[in-house]
Amino acid sequence: MSELEERLKKIKQASVNCGNFPTSLKNKALEAVAVALEKNFADIKKANQQDLEEAEKCNLAQPLLKRLKFDEDKLHDVVSGIRGLIKLDDPVNQKLSAMLLDDGLTLIKVSVAIGVIGVIFESRPDALVQIAALCIKSGNCAVLKGGSEALHSNRKLFEVIKNAVSEVDAGFADTLALIETREDVSELLQYNKYINLIIPRGSNAFVQYIQKNSLIPVLGHADGICHLYIDKYADVNKAKKVVVDAKTQYVSVCNATETLLVHKDIAEKVLPELFAELEARKVKLHCCERCTKYSVNAVVATDEDWATEYLDYELSVKVVDSIEDAVSHINTYGSGHTDGIITEDAECRKYFEAYVDTSSVVVNCSTRFADGFRYGMGAEVGVSTNKYHARGPVGLEGLIIYKYILEGDGHIVADYVGTNAKPYQHRKLS
Amino acid sequence: MSELEERLKKIKQASVNCGNFPTSLKNKALEAVAVALEKNFADIKKANQQDLEEAEKCNLAQPLLKRLKFDEDKLHDVVSGIRGLIKLDDPVNQKLSAMLLDDGLTLIKVSVAIGVIGVIFESRPDALVQIAALCIKSGNCAVLKGGSEALHSNRKLFEVIKNAVSEVDAGFADTLALIETREDVSELLQYNKYINLIIPRGSNAFVQYIQKNSLIPVLGHADGICHLYIDKYADVNKAKKVVVDAKTQYVSVCNATETLLVHKDIAEKVLPELFAELEARKVKLHCCERCTKYSVNAVVATDEDWATEYLDYELSVKVVDSIEDAVSHINTYGSGHTDGIITEDAECRKYFEAYVDTSSVVVNCSTRFADGFRYGMGAEVGVSTNKYHARGPVGLEGLIIYKYILEGDGHIVADYVGTNAKPYQHRKLS
Repeated sequence: MSELEERLKKIKQASVNCGNFPTSLKNKALEAVAVALEKNFADIKKANQQDLEEAEKCNLAQPLLKRLKFDEDKLHDVVSGIRGLIKLDDPVNQKLSAMLLDDGLTLIKVSVAIGVIGVIFESRPDALVQIAALCIKSGNCAVLKGGSEALHSNRKLFEVIKNAVSEVDAGFADTLALIETREDVSELLQYNKYINLIIPRGSNAFVQYIQKNSLIPVLGHADGICHLYIDKYADVNKAKKVVVDAKTQYVSVCNATETLLVHKDIAEKVLPELFAELEARKVKLHCCERCTKYSVNAVVATDEDWATEYLDYELSVKVVDSIEDAVSHINTYGSGHTDGIITEDAECRKYFEAYVDTSSVVVNCSTRFADGFRYGMGAEVGVSTNKYHARGPVGLEGLIIYKYILEGDGHIVADYVGTNAKPYQHRKLS
Repeated sequence: MSELEERLKKIKQASVNCGNFPTSLKNKALEAVAVALEKNFADIKKANQQDLEEAEKCNLAQPLLKRLKFDEDKLHDVVSGIRGLIKLDDPVNQKLSAMLLDDGLTLIKVSVAIGVIGVIFESRPDALVQIAALCIKSGNCAVLKGGSEALHSNRKLFEVIKNAVSEVDAGFADTLALIETREDVSELLQYNKYINLIIPRGSNAFVQYIQKNSLIPVLGHADGICHLYIDKYADVNKAKKVVVDAKTQYVSVCNATETLLVHKDIAEKVLPELFAELEARKVKLHCCERCTKYSVNAVVATDEDWATEYLDYELSVKVVDSIEDAVSHINTYGSGHTDGIITEDAECRKYFEAYVDTSSVVVNCSTRFADGFRYGMGAEVGVSTNKYHARGPVGLEGLIIYKYILEGDGHIVADYVGTNAKPYQHRKLS
């Protein structure tokens, strides 16, 4: 048995206890983590500085350096995230439903932790803290692998967190593991007997690589090809304001808008000013032939553009004949992440909400709102574009499952079959 | 584009409408199916007869022939199953929660159909009817592939169902598809762009084959290595009655008990009579060294026996020193399907319920109760031993997911970041 397998086997064994930790103990551990992060911030910053220096030497791009940095602001964010989590209800051991199958035979559905979660995340040290905290609160064990650029930061943060929770209760010691190498990830993917769920954060290609190389279920995320549709009945000022925010407030994130669809009857009214404003903010426009005329610098959009996640100051724009065409375009080219409509018409709103196949439908607001923090989840382990288990921003809820408990008094199936079969009552109790 | 891909593309397009069919229309379609099955029973029986004759020629085993047969009893079961489904609440378009993020900015979580479900099932024609009915009720499209022994029965049943629903509304025509060959299954597995979820019913090896050969999420089922533990505080009569039922009521099913664990302090009291009764029913016992003495014919259990799903008149039996040892044995050798305890002690019951990692914990009753019909789900698409999305017997709930709808009034993210950031309210509305 390899050294990694030994560790995973221990974690798997610890997971049954971990799933039964009382709420008060888990909250005490979270508070200890918050305090320890603040107390050890100088050391954490030093480790982070080492990563930053190495990254600069390697000419890491500016936005990546920004994500790699763990400064006072990030510390403040993760600590208040943890204190937010403490206040949330314990997601496990909740009675979800109960049914009387027959006299004295009661079926109860109870929420439980999933078990051992493997999370592979990008070079963002704050992600390590968020994910560890979510796992502690939800009674899950976590095997963490961060981006190699954040090696020293992750190592230090992990040490601080693990020491803090182990001091609260020795039982926490085996509930968290950090792995550091690609070889360990490859090996990890083989252990579906120890890992219950894997959450790979990163590109669509990376998620597919994991899926192809593991039998462990994957909570994944495809691209974020997000759309906004300006309906015939849109308020023009709201439309302009929302599109500018959705495209330019932060371009390198998955919930930024990549394609704008505009109803033909409102194009003339909204596009000239909107294009001017976008171009003033250095947005390059890829326009369909019906709207290039409203821009000075636009290029003609290709079919590929409709399927492109720019993550940059670029936007595809298409004029459509109807709301049905807009919905059909989104369902064809979208990635099921976040798609929105600007409209004052209740019927159009309802149609769009029902027929767009996406994890977040936004109405008269920016696609940029679609994330775990803004949705009030405290933190997120990722955004799922799956239509299975968890969809959209995933917080605590995505880390739990349920078990059935059937309590009887000597009941046997033989009494409920055949000619004199007793009938079931199937009466909902809650 | 192959002929199959054309069909799947159409189904995928139909799925958005299908997910929005009104409750009344879906129930009308289900009633039409029930009526059509009764009306066309002579034809269905004829097709089934053809399958049965061919199966007999191939010397298909008796239990398989029994499953293949679609007689009056099976017709009655599926028709009453459908009428039960009609009475159940519509699982889609339910508001699951709502939260005010800020004034005028409301987040709603709504249940929706998953989309297109691929189901590959054994040679049981009644399974085709059940699965199609569950998909109709939950607003999902279904691509069905049944066992080849049931070819003629499936073809006829599918035709009857499809005609019935298409007469209710032409929109149903593209929501159901039947495929018949292994080549079609291989091709289907490549189409994660059309199929949202695949449910393979069958052996563990078959489920793993699907997982290894497809990027489509799999709702799967490992073995059913189910345990019963007779606790120190068990009522001896209940224990005997329940064990006999769990082992012998129907041996070839996944929720039959395969291993019996007995606390050392009660072994002497319960095992002699229990073994006599089991052996009278032709059960072959594989006993640990501490309990062979209670049987005349027992063989000594090997390590492999603890991990074996017999699906036959065989039972592994082990004497354990404590409830902790019983739980540890189950968590080591079990498959997370169904595991039970016989006890009159509340503390032992609670400990067992919390610490056994399984989809159904049964207390003082038979493991054989763990199925969708007995759990009041109307019908089941399968039993999941996953700890992801759906666990245990899966009925309608396993076929739905949710979407978020965020309704605003020109809200932009830029107002909520930076130095003058507006705070979020995050107030639960329901």
